[in-house]
Amino acid sequence: MSDPSGAYRRTKRTTLKRLPLRGAYDHERVHAILDRGALCQIGYVAGGQPLVLPTVYWRDGGRVYWHGSRKSHALAAMAGAEVCFTVSHLDGLVMARSAFHHSVNYQAVMAFGVARRVDDPPDKRAALQAMFDRLYPGRWARIRQPSEAELAAVTVLYLELDEVSAKARDAPPLDVEEDLAIPVWAGVAPLEVRAGVLQPCRMSVSDAAIPEGLADWTAGGPAPFR
Amino acid sequence: MSDPSGAYRRTKRTTLKRLPLRGAYDHERVHAILDRGALCQIGYVAGGQPLVLPTVYWRDGGRVYWHGSRKSHALAAMAGAEVCFTVSHLDGLVMARSAFHHSVNYQAVMAFGVARRVDDPPDKRAALQAMFDRLYPGRWARIRQPSEAELAAVTVLYLELDEVSAKARDAPPLDVEEDLAIPVWAGVAPLEVRAGVLQPCRMSVSDAAIPEGLADWTAGGPAPFR
Repeated sequence: MSDPSGAYRRTKRTTLKRLPLRGAYDHERVHAILDRGALCQIGYVAGGQPLVLPTVYWRDGGRVYWHGSRKSHALAAMAGAEVCFTVSHLDGLVMARSAFHHSVNYQAVMAFGVARRVDDPPDKRAALQAMFDRLYPGRWARIRQPSEAELAAVTVLYLELDEVSAKARDAPPLDVEEDLAIPVWAGVAPLEVRAGVLQPCRMSVSDAAIPEGLADWTAGGPAPFR
Repeated sequence: MSDPSGAYRRTKRTTLKRLPLRGAYDHERVHAILDRGALCQIGYVAGGQPLVLPTVYWRDGGRVYWHGSRKSHALAAMAGAEVCFTVSHLDGLVMARSAFHHSVNYQAVMAFGVARRVDDPPDKRAALQAMFDRLYPGRWARIRQPSEAELAAVTVLYLELDEVSAKARDAPPLDVEEDLAIPVWAGVAPLEVRAGVLQPCRMSVSDAAIPEGLADWTAGGPAPFR
């Protein structure tokens, strides 16, 4: 499933009906979009009602994971249920000469399937460690790791990546020829995510050096994800 | 509904059950979060299946709007149906001394209700103009506005803001006292959205001046939204 040269199977619900050229199904493309992000939005149904959970996720091979409190109603409703896992990045505003051809540049992934809970405590611990390696790199070995009680207080869910599609637009405006002479600026105004100024906690009692994971963090520089 | 001093009614499905202090229901707070963003994720159900549409939105008073092709299956499924409209911003990584108290700073809005289609052509045109005023300010008067056929090719939907909640975390790490002496950097690593370098379209045949809406656009400077 995580063979980078492979592709996810196309099914009725993942095959793009309109604008099929904007779609992609190969592992490399799907994983690259997932690995740009840290925030996903997961659709699920509870009592017939559509619901969306925005939460942090991480990819590990051919799975995406998310977690939360054991008391979370959302996670309880998702475990064993169909979900629609989505990640979407807004990369720029596309400004054309006609209203109709204005657009946005974006990248998105949508994955369908049944969410599963990680029950075994060692597996759960390993999943959380993978989250740290992804979101808070270099910290796992330096922080206080979860106690048994803390581990028990967390629910970890995952979705096996199987029915997955990527969708993207990354292009200049595409006006019809008759409109090209309209005297208005046309092009792309990119939106980029950058690292902000680190805000050390005022409660720190030690002169803790900034650890590995943040050594590259430069305010105004590239962010590790968006 | 858009009285800035007012608040949205709290219902069973909008009242935060866990961490109620992270919730807010007042117009000012909800609108401020909505007005930071341009990309929403809307949950809906089709054939019993949860689905999420990531798309551009804009707020106009007490409504949020989105649009797309008249041929969009997603928009067709949403019109007249229950949706879960969400906007979520990831603002920073919260790094604590314990794994358990790592978190993220974020802002999110969730709104429930039945999506409605804007059918009347003048209303549809007005809604699209409001989208331009919001996303592409200063351009509506300078571009070629939609023809009747183009207007007919677009579906515009909206949700009346009624059952709405905001949820946010904007704080340093909150470790337990026994962990404060652990010698690891702790604090917040902010993620910020910035304006990128404008990319003029190479097909431009006129020396179009950069219009009002982009006069303030400075690469590396603040973005109008995220």
